[in-house]
Parts: sequence; C-alpha cells; structure tokens
Amino acid sequence: MWNRNIETFLACDAEYADAGIVLFGAPFDGTASFRPGARFAPKAIRADSYGLETYSPYQDRDLTALRVFDGGDLELPFGSPQRVLAMIEDYVSRLLADGKWPLMMGGEHLVTLGAVRAVVKRHPGLHVLHLDAHADLRDDYLGERLSHATVMRRVWELVGDGRVTQIGIRSGEKREFDFARAHTHSCELDSRAVDLMLEKLAGQPVYISLDLDILDPSVLPGTGTPEPGGIRFNELLGVVTKLDRLHVVGGDVTELSPPYDPSGISTAAACKILREIFLIFT
Amino acid sequence: MWNRNIETFLACDAEYADAGIVLFGAPFDGTASFRPGARFAPKAIRADSYGLETYSPYQDRDLTALRVFDGGDLELPFGSPQRVLAMIEDYVSRLLADGKWPLMMGGEHLVTLGAVRAVVKRHPGLHVLHLDAHADLRDDYLGERLSHATVMRRVWELVGDGRVTQIGIRSGEKREFDFARAHTHSCELDSRAVDLMLEKLAGQPVYISLDLDILDPSVLPGTGTPEPGGIRFNELLGVVTKLDRLHVVGGDVTELSPPYDPSGISTAAACKILREIFLIFT
Amino acid sequence: MWNRNIETFLACDAEYADAGIVLFGAPFDGTASFRPGARFAPKAIRADSYGLETYSPYQDRDLTALRVFDGGDLELPFGSPQRVLAMIEDYVSRLLADGKWPLMMGGEHLVTLGAVRAVVKRHPGLHVLHLDAHADLRDDYLGERLSHATVMRRVWELVGDGRVTQIGIRSGEKREFDFARAHTHSCELDSRAVDLMLEKLAGQPVYISLDLDILDPSVLPGTGTPEPGGIRFNELLGVVTKLDRLHVVGGDVTELSPPYDPSGISTAAACKILREIFLIFT
Amino acid sequence: MWNRNIETFLACDAEYADAGIVLFGAPFDGTASFRPGARFAPKAIRADSYGLETYSPYQDRDLTALRVFDGGDLELPFGSPQRVLAMIEDYVSRLLADGKWPLMMGGEHLVTLGAVRAVVKRHPGLHVLHLDAHADLRDDYLGERLSHATVMRRVWELVGDGRVTQIGIRSGEKREFDFARAHTHSCELDSRAVDLMLEKLAGQPVYISLDLDILDPSVLPGTGTPEPGGIRFNELLGVVTKLDRLHVVGGDVTELSPPYDPSGISTAAACKILREIFLIFT
Amino acid sequence: MWNRNIETFLACDAEYADAGIVLFGAPFDGTASFRPGARFAPKAIRADSYGLETYSPYQDRDLTALRVFDGGDLELPFGSPQRVLAMIEDYVSRLLADGKWPLMMGGEHLVTLGAVRAVVKRHPGLHVLHLDAHADLRDDYLGERLSHATVMRRVWELVGDGRVTQIGIRSGEKREFDFARAHTHSCELDSRAVDLMLEKLAGQPVYISLDLDILDPSVLPGTGTPEPGGIRFNELLGVVTKLDRLHVVGGDVTELSPPYDPSGISTAAACKILREIFLIFT
Amino acid sequence: MWNRNIETFLACDAEYADAGIVLFGAPFDGTASFRPGARFAPKAIRADSYGLETYSPYQDRDLTALRVFDGGDLELPFGSPQRVLAMIEDYVSRLLADGKWPLMMGGEHLVTLGAVRAVVKRHPGLHVLHLDAHADLRDDYLGERLSHATVMRRVWELVGDGRVTQIGIRSGEKREFDFARAHTHSCELDSRAVDLMLEKLAGQPVYISLDLDILDPSVLPGTGTPEPGGIRFNELLGVVTKLDRLHVVGGDVTELSPPYDPSGISTAAACKILREIFLIFT
Repeated sequence: MWNRNIETFLACDAEYADAGIVLFGAPFDGTASFRPGARFAPKAIRADSYGLETYSPYQDRDLTALRVFDGGDLELPFGSPQRVLAMIEDYVSRLLADGKWPLMMGGEHLVTLGAVRAVVKRHPGLHVLHLDAHADLRDDYLGERLSHATVMRRVWELVGDGRVTQIGIRSGEKREFDFARAHTHSCELDSRAVDLMLEKLAGQPVYISLDLDILDPSVLPGTGTPEPGGIRFNELLGVVTKLDRLHVVGGDVTELSPPYDPSGISTAAACKILREIFLIFT
Repeated sequence: MWNRNIETFLACDAEYADAGIVLFGAPFDGTASFRPGARFAPKAIRADSYGLETYSPYQDRDLTALRVFDGGDLELPFGSPQRVLAMIEDYVSRLLADGKWPLMMGGEHLVTLGAVRAVVKRHPGLHVLHLDAHADLRDDYLGERLSHATVMRRVWELVGDGRVTQIGIRSGEKREFDFARAHTHSCELDSRAVDLMLEKLAGQPVYISLDLDILDPSVLPGTGTPEPGGIRFNELLGVVTKLDRLHVVGGDVTELSPPYDPSGISTAAACKILREIFLIFT
Repeated sequence: MWNRNIETFLACDAEYADAGIVLFGAPFDGTASFRPGARFAPKAIRADSYGLETYSPYQDRDLTALRVFDGGDLELPFGSPQRVLAMIEDYVSRLLADGKWPLMMGGEHLVTLGAVRAVVKRHPGLHVLHLDAHADLRDDYLGERLSHATVMRRVWELVGDGRVTQIGIRSGEKREFDFARAHTHSCELDSRAVDLMLEKLAGQPVYISLDLDILDPSVLPGTGTPEPGGIRFNELLGVVTKLDRLHVVGGDVTELSPPYDPSGISTAAACKILREIFLIFT
Repeated sequence: MWNRNIETFLACDAEYADAGIVLFGAPFDGTASFRPGARFAPKAIRADSYGLETYSPYQDRDLTALRVFDGGDLELPFGSPQRVLAMIEDYVSRLLADGKWPLMMGGEHLVTLGAVRAVVKRHPGLHVLHLDAHADLRDDYLGERLSHATVMRRVWELVGDGRVTQIGIRSGEKREFDFARAHTHSCELDSRAVDLMLEKLAGQPVYISLDLDILDPSVLPGTGTPEPGGIRFNELLGVVTKLDRLHVVGGDVTELSPPYDPSGISTAAACKILREIFLIFT
Repeated sequence: MWNRNIETFLACDAEYADAGIVLFGAPFDGTASFRPGARFAPKAIRADSYGLETYSPYQDRDLTALRVFDGGDLELPFGSPQRVLAMIEDYVSRLLADGKWPLMMGGEHLVTLGAVRAVVKRHPGLHVLHLDAHADLRDDYLGERLSHATVMRRVWELVGDGRVTQIGIRSGEKREFDFARAHTHSCELDSRAVDLMLEKLAGQPVYISLDLDILDPSVLPGTGTPEPGGIRFNELLGVVTKLDRLHVVGGDVTELSPPYDPSGISTAAACKILREIFLIFT
Repeated sequence: MWNRNIETFLACDAEYADAGIVLFGAPFDGTASFRPGARFAPKAIRADSYGLETYSPYQDRDLTALRVFDGGDLELPFGSPQRVLAMIEDYVSRLLADGKWPLMMGGEHLVTLGAVRAVVKRHPGLHVLHLDAHADLRDDYLGERLSHATVMRRVWELVGDGRVTQIGIRSGEKREFDFARAHTHSCELDSRAVDLMLEKLAGQPVYISLDLDILDPSVLPGTGTPEPGGIRFNELLGVVTKLDRLHVVGGDVTELSPPYDPSGISTAAACKILREIFLIFT
C-alpha cells in the first residue's frame, strides 16, 4: 500500500532476489548522428506497456509466469561515451555475477557495447545475433570510434570472426558490406534460413541485439535513422518467437526514439516485441 | 442555396424519407482505458471524406447511386455508459421501425452494444460478425461490466452461443481466448476461410461490427489501443468487398481516435473502408 | 541499489512514515466533455520534473528540505464517476487519519470532489480556494450531476455559502455567474485583492484547488478546454507564493492534458507550480 | 429530428429568413507564400466552438439572443484567385441585397478583397478597420497583384485615401510603412488612441478586417506567417468589445491555419474573438 | 572553405558544367485541393538526405560515382499556375539545351506538365511513365483545367494516345478509368507485367513521373491526398531499380507534403527512392 | 544562374571577402541533459527566415544594407565535446584573424565556450553579456565539466570576476545563485537597470551570448529545458535593440530545439531576434 511510486514494464514486479531476468534502461543517445531521442525510450516503454496484455497468443505463454525485476534506468552522463559504456559494463557484470539474465532497453545502439563487454567476459565463446537495418560496421564515424555507427565493429573485435550474425541489414557503406562478407555471418529472413542459422548456434551462448529500425519505418517511425524498405512486425515476430531454441544469455532492444512518433505506435511495437523476448526465456 | 451549413460523409445527401441507409455518429469514448479520443471520429470522418472519390474501382460502384441519410451525431453524456447505450438503442430502434439500415460511426467499441440491443429485437436470429484485434470478451474490466473490453461478451449474452464470428483477433487474456474457443466462431483471414464463413452465414441477418484496430497500427495509428501485427488495408478490403453476399441488417465502424494521428492517414483509411461498406448494400 | 524502478516527482523520495505530505495521482478524465487526456497528467508530471531544479529562487527554499512521499497513482475504473470519487475519498481519508497533508494530481477537475469529501469531514469549517478559468458551478451537465462542469457546485453543497473563493474565472453560463454572486466569494488577481482575501482566510483550514486552465492557453496549451484570455505564469506564481500565510490542509492540481501539447511546456508549467505549492508547506 | 447533419458555429442556428447576420466560410489559401492551411479554418472554428460558452462575461451578452445564419463554406477553386474573389463578391452582394450583415471566415487575407468589393458598392463611403501584424500594402508580390501581401493596397484603391485605419502593424517592407504614412491611418493600441479613432469613425459605415496574426504567435501559433512581438488576447478583446460604438456593416476573421497548431489554442482564440465580434452587433 | 552555405541532396555536389544530371525543386502546391504543403518537399528532401547512405546495396552502386548538380529551387509565384508552368518549362528547356538530364522535385503533381512541355519538344516521340495512386485524368477540376487532378490529361494531350503508361492507379472518377482504358496503357505491379512493359518501351525516350502517393499511406503519410491500399516501399523499389533498362530522358518526384508527417518517414522514403532513381542513370 | 543550391539566412548573401559579419552554425547538442534537438536549429532558422521581412520597423534599418556572409554549419562529431569546442575555437579564430565579427547559431549553449575561447584571446578584456533563464554556473554536471549546465562557469574562468553580466536568470541550484552573487553581475530587465548596465560596459569589448530560453516557453516552446515564467518577446526586443550602444565583438544565439515545436513559432522568434542582432552592428 504505502510503497513509493513504482513503475515497471507490464508485470515485471519480482524482487531482485527472486528474479531470473533483470530489465533495465540505458537512456543514452549521445552519439546519435541524425535524430536523437532514444534516451526517452525506457520510460516510454514502461508507460505504454499499460496498453498491452501480459498473455501472448503467439507463444501461448503469459508474462505473469516469469520472475522479472525492473531495475529502472542507469543515470548516465552526457558528453562521455567512455564513461557511459563503463557504467553499463559494470552494472551488467554485477547482474551476471548474481546469476541474472540482463535485458537492456536503449538508448542508442552504442549501449550494446557496454553490455557485450560484460557478457563476453562471463561467456568467452559468445555469439552475437544482430538484428538491424544498418550494418554498424564502420571503423570510425567522423573520427570517433565509439558511435552507434561503429558498434558492431567494436563488438566484432571482442567476439571475433564468424561470431556475429546479422539479420535484416539493408543500409551501409560499401566498405561495411565488404567487411561483413569477410567477417560476419548474414542471415536472410525466410523461414528456412533462420532455422538453419538457429541450428548452427544451438548450444552456444548467444547475446541478442535488436535494433528496432530493422522494422519498416511505417511500423516504427519513431527511430533515429528511419531506413525505408524494412520488415513487417509479424516477420520480426516470426524470428523472435523461434529464439527460444537458443541458449540466450542476454540481450537488448535499442533505437526507439519516442519523440519522433506522436502516434505512439513505435513504442507499442517495442513493448510487444519486448514481451515476446521475455517469453522465449520460459 | 440558403440551407444552414450541412456537413455529411461524402455524397450522403439523401433526405431521411428517401434513404435506405442512415449514417450517424455515436461520439462516446468514456470507458476507453488507454488512450481516449474516439469521440472525435465522426466529425473527422465527415471532414476528411473530402479527399476521397465516390467511385470504388474495387467494386465498380459509385456512392452517388445510393441513398444515404447522414443524421449527424447523437448528443451523448459523459459519465454514464448506461444512459449512452440507452440513447443509442432508442435511436437505432426508431431507424429500424422506419425500415432503415443503421450504420453507426463510433466512438469506442462499447457503442456497438446499444445498436445490437436494438437490432436483435427486430432480427431475433441475429448473427454478429466481429472484426477486431482484441477479443473484447472479458466479463468485467476493473469491476465495470460495460466497457470497450467487455462489449463482445455482452453482445454474446444477447445473441447466444455460436452467433458471434470473430476475425483478426490477436490480443486478449488467456481466459478470453478460452472463452472464444467455447462460445464463438473464429475465422482466419485467408480467402478460403472467409468464403466458407460467408457460406455458413448466407441468408441469416448479420450485424457487422468493425473495430478499426484490426488494421496494423502502421495503417491506422490513430486508435485507442494500437496492437502491432495487424492486417494491411487491402486484406481488410478483400474481406469487406465480399460481404455483399450476406444479408447485412446494420453495422458500425469504431475505435478511430484522430488525435493520435496528426498525419490523417487513419481517418483516410476509415473513410475508404466506410465507402466500401456502403457499397456492399447496393 | 536493487529497488524496483521508482519514479517520483523531483526529490519526493521520503518514506511514507517520515513524510508530512503525500503526493498521489488520480488519473481520471471520464467526464471530460471536450478534449480528454488529463488521465496522462500524473505520469507526465513525474517524468518531466527531471527538467526542473529543486531550488526555488522565488521562495529561496529547496524541495530537498521537505519530506514528501509520492504514493503513485490510484487505479481508477473508467465508466463510473461514483466509484472513482469513492476511491479517492477513501484514500485521502486514510492519509488524513495518518496525519498527512494530501496533494493530488488530476485528472480532470471532478476528482477534487472526492478529496474535499474526505477533507471536510476532518476539517468541518473548511474553506476551498478555487483557481480556475471556468466557474464549474452548473447544477448538471447534459443531465449528469457529477461532471468537471459541476464540481464546484457539489463542493459548495458540502462546505456551504461563502466558503468557496474563486480566482480567475472568465467563462461560464450566465446562471453560473449569477450563482457565484449569491453564494461564493470572487477575488480579483491584483495584489491588494489577494492580500485582503488571504487576511480573511487566515487561520481557517483551506483546501486549494488549482485548475491549471486558469493560465492562458499560450502558457498551458495542453488542457481539456482552453479558454483564451487567461493569466501569465508569473501572475499565478505571485498568488501561489503568498499562500504560505494560510493554514493549508490539502490541495490539488488538475486539468493538465499532455496529449494536446507536443512541446511539453504545459507539463513544465504544471511541474514548476507544483514545486512552488510544495514549498508553501515549509 | 431527421435533419441532415448540420454543423454551425456555436448557437448560430437561425434560418436565413430570420437572420440579421450571415456567417460563412471562404476556405481559400491559394496565394499563401509561406505556410498554407488557412483553408481549414472555417471547419475547425465550427468544430471547436463546442468548447466555448455562448455567454460573454466581458460584454454580459449571450449569443443565443442573436439570430445568426451559418451558410457554410463557399466551394472555391484553387488555381484562380480572380474567380475566387468574384465568387465571394457575388455571394456577399446577395447577402447585402437581402439586408444581412456578412461575417466571413477566411481563408487567407486575400478573401477580404472579394467582400469589400461588394460592401463598398452598397456603402460608398466605406471605411475599413484593419487589424493585422502585416501591412499588406505591397503593390505586387513576385509579380502577382492579387495576394495576401497586397490585399490592403487593393482595398485602399477601392475606398480611397484616409479610409483605411490600421492597428497592430509590426511587419512590412520599408516601402509599405512609407505608403502607410502617406495614405492610411495608423492607430496605436492604447485605450486613448482607440477611443479617439472610434470617435472619428462614428456614424460612418465600417468594415472590420481582422487578420488573426495581430495576436502574438504564443496566443495564435496556427497561422501562415507568425510574427513575434504581437498583442495578447485580452488586448485584442479590449479593442473588439469597444467596436459596438461603430456602425459596422460587415467583417471578416482571417489567417487561422489550424494544421500548424496541434494544441488547438489558435482555433480556440479565433472562436472566442468571433463570439465577441458577433456580440458587438447586439 | 569560404563558400556561402550550400545545401544539396546527398552527394550531389558537381559543378553545373561537369554534371550529367541536374536536380532542382519546383516548390509549388497552389492547386492542391485537399492538403497543401508539397511546397516544402525539396528543402525537406535535401535536409533529411543527411540520414541516408550514398551507397545502394540494391543496385550495388554509389551516388558518389555520379555527377549531379543541385540547382536549388525555382522561385515560383503563388496565384498563377500558368506562370509557374511557363517558368518550369523555360528552366527545363535550358537544361536540355545544355545536354543535361532534368530531375525535378515537386511540389504538387501539376509541375510535371511544365517539365513535359519542355521535354516533348526535344524528344518528339516521348513516352511518359506515370506511377501514381490517382489517375489525374480529369478534364477540369472545379472549372480549372490546370490542376493536380488534370495533369495527366494535359500530358496526354501533348504526347498522344498510347504514350502514357500508368502504374499503381487505385483512385479516380469512373470517367477517368473509362478514359484510361481508351487512351493510356495500364501496367500491373507484378514482375512479369513490368518486364513486358519495359520491353515495349525499350529504346524510346521516356519521362518518369512518380507521384509518391503510389506508396501506401503507412509508408508515406506525408502527402496531399493519402489513398489507402497502396504499395509497399520494396514493391516500388522493385520497379524503379528495373528502369535502368529504359532510355530515361527526365523525371520527377512529386506530392511529398512534409508538414503532414512529423515522424519524417515520408521524407526518408522520398530520399531513398530518389537515390535509386539517380542510380538508374549510371 | 548555375550556382549550386545556396541557402542562407534572409539576405545574408555577401561574399566572404566583402563581409563584415560571418554567420555560421554549430549544430551540436551532445551534452543536452533533458531534451536534445538544438542541432537542428541552424537549418531551421535559415529555412524559416523566408517568412520574415529584411526591414525592421523597430530599428528602422534593413538587413539588405549589411554585408553578412553565411558560412554554413560546422561538421561536428557527436561523442566528444572537447573536439567540438576545439573546432569552434579554430573556426572563430580564423574569422577574427580576417577581421570578421562572428555570429554563431547553436546548438546547445556549450558551444559558446568554443567561441569565447577564441574571442578572449583577441580581446583580452572581454566582457560577456549572458541572457538566459538558467545560471549555467555549475562546476560539473553528473561529473562532466563540459556541459550546457556549466558553460558560464567555464566562461567565467576565462574572463574573470565581474566580467560576466547575467540577465533573465530564473533557475539554478542554490549554489549557482550564491556563486553569481560573488562573481558575476546580475541585471534586472527594467529599462533603467539595462541603461545603467550599458553605460558601465560602454567602450569595452563585449560578447553577447543569448540562450533563447530566456523567453517564456509560451513564446519559445521549442527549447531543451523550458523554464516557465520567462520574458515576452517585446521585452527581449527592448534589450537587444539597445545593444548598438556597445562595442560588440561577437555573439551567439543558442538552445532553439525545433523538433519540440511543430508550430514553428520558436524558430520564428529566433529568426526575428537574430535579424535585430544583426542590425545593432550597423
């Protein structure tokens, strides 16, 4: 009755000690090159999850059956990506030490690097499944090496050749596509290709990094760099609901930028896909 | 020349006495649990119908060939769903007594109950065809039995087992899906399933209740509870243009919430589907 | 460290037991006749209070010196104003029994009635200071007696003749202005009139009901019924910062409707005036 | 009961034959050089007048005491300002022939010319009272002589030297200010200047042309060419409520552009000032 | 270093003398009948092209390999479609005389007529490939012969029977569809139909006129007359990337109306399709 | 005729060699703590200056009489405030070396530091006139010393005690107000206080730093941290038009955030005050 005001994603009301999964926000968008605003995503996702049911007819599972702790948002400084990444790495390391699965809400995509730094230390053979419209494989962006546009290059440096699998990429410099052909896996979205990829990753520790702009801008207008020609919501749903076959050890959902979508449908899409991601842990 | 300002949907300019169909608005959204605003739908639909042609190339029919009377909006009180439903029921009853087909623009989905109460009295074996994203089959919502989230449960109580057919449902509590399996029909959206369903309903009096959020939020962002993963406009069009095979005795179009769509595409979608619904009466 | 996600207004982080003031939200807008959306005000106020300092240069006081408990939002059903008012009355009664000062964030203005019902029981000689653009003195609205447009009539019935003082009123039916002349006090906004009024109320228990639409729509566009010709922010500030001379026993801030203000300046105004109201309790 | 849907401004529900004043819309914005959208003003004004009371506490008069006929909107072609002006002139001429006072809702400011052409024929000594932020006294604009930026120059050509009085002008080319000094009156907004001006115009037939952008953009953001540094709503109200001393023979309210104001406060301001203009005819 | 501020589409930074293609804006929307705003399209396209890569993975080509000169926007008067068309015709004629390919950004669709007038003089056997939701084949619109709704009729008068091919049309009066059957080609969007059509046009000079509202409103909400039921971005991409088989001698992209899309996804779609159109010239 | 597309503020079309003043943009908002978006200000100001006249009736001067070069925007990296400041300092230093007055459009307020670093080297006794709602005198913000919230503290470190004069401050931590009392001047907005302050600064080199949020949020809703209770546009105008008495050696206009103001009035206010600032150099 007399608790201070608690706001969590949907039914994520477990205590920390009881929880298997920890949800938290990393509200940083300091390297966004085009349209900032992803910093507002975690709060928006929590607030608008009110419009969503806990039950998924797709997986016939209910979020109320899970024990998720919503730890709120990290208080991140603007102006220093290095410090931001260190704070995320530190937070995730502690979660992992306590045996929790971390699920992070960005923020921009760069925050993934902080989490992966922590996860790869605990799971040395880590594989990263990267769903995105953009390759994010540049070596630097306007001279900066820590950027939403370079994050997967940095991740690749951590996990090594062949340990990044990319789905949905439809934008990048020619050099990024060349780099991808040499150093990462690429997976088409058709059902067979996804099944094959899942077979290959079976048993390995996998971190899932979902940049929501993989969705078509009509489905997710509220994002930093809308890239036309993306996939429909049900196509993404089709992939995500298959991921319960994997040994997922952490993940994130990034690049929702609520200020660019007054209709709220982008946040609704983020909420629903987040619910489905939770349910693959059951 | 010197008529007071008349604003009607498209070419719906028949006099009441001459009309076969009566269009009217029920601008009520008092039980909306997430995002209100459906009260503004009827005015928005009339205003933006200006951007639409009267001719449908899909059905090769023209709205100018119909005689539709646009009776304006009911003046409904906020704060009392009971009185609202009684006023709708009374209005529709008078239309039916005059031999008119009622076509109602919501407002939220609860208004359907008022209309069905009137229609079922006149057509005792009434069947309700329910197109929606949400099952709307709860028994109560936060203790209230009259709610947009319970409306189809109330309708089912009126028409009886097996007399509600649902299309497009992709959200609800587990209990609602269980209830649906036991008490209502469910129809897939593929062409064959729809044809079969239409055969079964042939000859029976049918009321069509279209909750516009059956459409994907990308197509209809302006709605109270956007539910990602819905159908495309042409898929809905494919179903609606087949409904001329049925003996339709009334219908409604609900849950457009214009304030949540500054682009106006939601209202445009509502206008166009409404035109096609009119044309199935020819 | 491992608390579930807590979101409070600014520095309102006291525990219930230690708090002198309790802030809570009453997110109800079910009788809004024109533009709904006030239900979203409490969450918006908490979120955007991030942009505000805790220190007030106007009063040279700091919110961190207060002990405020933010109790979150009541879970109110839509569709039944009676139940909503009963739930608010019950909640406030318990706060009063524990010796707390209640500060409520609406919602629409009707919620005031629930709070006043509780407060007047504890403070029988209660006076209500009503700051608003609209008189809210109708006896009924479209047949309903419980409405944002009748709330001060209902309050007057509780506290009695001469115990409601109105400031800022610039809209109403002729009958409401006639009623006001006979039964309530009216106070101009100039400094002298306010001082005199404060002298008269000195020592009496006072409940402050602030309908934010007293502000000009340029200052507060996000409200249900914008009424041009209102006061500037600093004029309201001038009144509010004088209220520390009164024996205030409770209050509310109502009718912020964030969806109608994409710029966020309305919520910013609500946050700042709320900070100043807190500080008059010091 | 069975009238086709009638939508009028507030209580403007008189029949044409009984009416003293005729309200109509001229939804044209074809020469707008910066931001179009004034075409949507008449519909928006009618719709949002729902949020306004019929009673004015400023004038202690009620709109229900007037007999106003709302004739709807002229159907004006885009692409030909000449034809548009001819259609407006023809319509107003017929109103005048029937002994009605015309009150026109623009549309952009050019529509004034059509109305003045008709009025000056009937009232040869016509004086035009022009409230605006912009002088509108150019001789041509990008080579076009019919433009919102030239309308008062064209009006001046019709009524002659000294028969245009301008209030509120704060923008124009140097040449326009020079022209104004030589050929029009200019009136400051202080109370004394306005009183003197009203005395001088006493007894003469006066047409009132109100370009709403005289108001500060904070009060009326929804306009084609927002010009910062304008007057507050109450200042405009102070002038308008004095105009009942004049022999007003027609008027207009122009340059509201609703699409540029999602908050609706601009339309609210237009509605309220329109109510007050009606009431000066009582 | 010390150049005045130059803003061009993406990498379109060639000098005029070196350029093969000239991009320019025709910011006119003076005959828009429903929602104006297309005048703002060229500036928006240039500004938001910042969010796009120069490299196309669809065509494996890079815009940096082209030599495109961005000539800025024509300064067009509002109020006179005739003058606007003459200015466009004159500009394009000069480009053609210099051996450049013209690529025009509307503005509304009427601007196409100005360009085609110039192109058909230079290429007498010109064929026009028209991608659109609307037939645009009326003979007049509210009495005006120069209108966005008549533009293809005027174009047909210039190029002759069988020399207009239409793709994507889903809206028009019955008479327009009848006219189309008699006088123009119509092409379905499936791959085979497009291939056949391209074969037939092979070797002929072709002007491409792309009205962006061929796209579904979910993909392109920011347009003057949104017509639900359109094609997806990738479907349009599929057609456009095949056009390199044609002898394209000019083209345009019209009817983007940025003010109706606060999310910016419409402009993003326009930018990306424009990039692909450039690349078919390589 | 065949220049690449040049877009400048109003009539700022001088060549660099001829110019006395150089306008440029610093589109950086990387340390914005609340609402980012100031990066879009320079482009918005240039685009919307189209709605403004070059002539100022307030100063009876015309911008066409000045020689201003608009050098476009610096290409600044996100993620490194240090590099951003160095790039600004370098650019301004070169302008000063060429004998130009720099006028910078932010971006967030931190960019001022880069410019002042360059200016103070050339004008050792520099005085900074700081117009703002916020004191910006923190020593660090979440551990960062380079931030919009610390910028005036850093500036003070450069210019020394008593060489910063602040106008309009209405928000800050208590410590900032204490610091201001000890180390900076504070100037009230009344005419006499401003006159006195101008007298004191007469003859000294002065840099003007205008944070636009000094304006009330009703006038300038589009800003990063709206602070209610600010000044009206004409009050700011009154101060700015007096600054021609000073020896101004550079200046900036910061913290316009266009994405937060769909109405565009904020950008209109920025454009107009920028015009007036240019004119004080004549």
